[in-house]
Amino acid sequence: MRQRARARLYVDDDLGDGLTVGLAAAQAHYLRHVMRLAPGDVVALFNGRDGEWHARVDGFGRGWCSLVIERQTREQGAEPDIWLLFAPIKRARLDFLVQKAVELGASRLQPVMTRHTDVKRVNVERLRANAAEAAEQCERTTLPAVDEAQPLTAVMADWPSERRLLLCAEAGSAQPIHDILTAEAVSGSAAVWAILTGPEGGFDPSELDALGKLPFVTPVSLGPRILRAETAALSALVCWQSVLGDWHSDRV
Amino acid sequence: MRQRARARLYVDDDLGDGLTVGLAAAQAHYLRHVMRLAPGDVVALFNGRDGEWHARVDGFGRGWCSLVIERQTREQGAEPDIWLLFAPIKRARLDFLVQKAVELGASRLQPVMTRHTDVKRVNVERLRANAAEAAEQCERTTLPAVDEAQPLTAVMADWPSERRLLLCAEAGSAQPIHDILTAEAVSGSAAVWAILTGPEGGFDPSELDALGKLPFVTPVSLGPRILRAETAALSALVCWQSVLGDWHSDRV
Repeated sequence: MRQRARARLYVDDDLGDGLTVGLAAAQAHYLRHVMRLAPGDVVALFNGRDGEWHARVDGFGRGWCSLVIERQTREQGAEPDIWLLFAPIKRARLDFLVQKAVELGASRLQPVMTRHTDVKRVNVERLRANAAEAAEQCERTTLPAVDEAQPLTAVMADWPSERRLLLCAEAGSAQPIHDILTAEAVSGSAAVWAILTGPEGGFDPSELDALGKLPFVTPVSLGPRILRAETAALSALVCWQSVLGDWHSDRV
Repeated sequence: MRQRARARLYVDDDLGDGLTVGLAAAQAHYLRHVMRLAPGDVVALFNGRDGEWHARVDGFGRGWCSLVIERQTREQGAEPDIWLLFAPIKRARLDFLVQKAVELGASRLQPVMTRHTDVKRVNVERLRANAAEAAEQCERTTLPAVDEAQPLTAVMADWPSERRLLLCAEAGSAQPIHDILTAEAVSGSAAVWAILTGPEGGFDPSELDALGKLPFVTPVSLGPRILRAETAALSALVCWQSVLGDWHSDRV
């Protein structure tokens, strides 16, 4: 009987029948000392290109682990094309935002610096490590792209005009997000989408004015309660996935 | 010119013109030493019954603060009638689940013990404190009811049969949650709803069998990725609010 994978890891290496994969210290430590795996145990591997493969632990050494790939368990998949642009927030909630955005299938994460963003520096390597861990856990075969933080103005200046942007603006006269998304689904438009959420302090009125003038921006409302920045981002992703993304029966 | 409230607090006291409210140590400390308020500063108060009122700090003492209520700033509101039943999870993510569920407008939180729930004890007072803090922050005028943990079997045995239950089951043949909710919206049914999510280990097959036989239970799917327990709960709440709750234009 085939063994179940005891762990699931993202690796850079090419994956294919009979290939050997060597893990560096952190992942080797995780398998040996956290998961307590032994030679012969099975691990699932993915690299974002070759699907998911089962590999057997061949040996452990000081700061390394070697695995021999046995068989492909899943074809390479793809997440829906949905970007999340977000003003960085304080560390614990930012980690959380990234993890949940990966579970919810975001294909790209772009931190944007806004007027009221009080986080000065974004550790993108930390965000990428968080994203990889979340992808391992939620069984994606992909990692999202995680971009370096950029000023919102710069991102808007270079914006691909065919991509529509859902602006999660507190209050205001925005239409409910569900109305916007269902109208889009009915229209059968093939538009691609992104979501933009602000910092704890919200967007500056001047930012909202400028965004409102951009032809690809659609402001949406997320109900009457005041949502924290990370809650707004995840809520918009959930709505998008449920109506236009791969949660929807017509699209699964 | 009227001052803006520097803080927003849930209190038990009755609220009305000219009444005096005395805060106990924790809230007094928060206003004085965390928010650095001084006598004369304005605080928003709500108690879940009398709407929201602005009150002025009258004085601080050792472990207390007195406020004089000046005027009502909001009528008493109500959240949509949506219950969240959830198997308790580890502390940090449970705190997070409760906070987000309050932001997302849950009217009742019911921890349920399932077969694979590995959390043995739930500190309901801690959940209630978290819920109150989240209600202060998201500007609800209500607190959700937070019940003592009960076995899932007991909750199902006493279930009010007119309330429908969305069962967030991983995988399986469940219909997408959005299809179920939009069909309900179209039907114009006046049903009331609850959401049930399982523990990290998922429901036991015997639990899913038993739940599937209950006439008020509708299993729903939340897409192809494996969602953590708290992500599933929040996603289901978001979908419900956006289609049947107060995020929806026809219902706001």
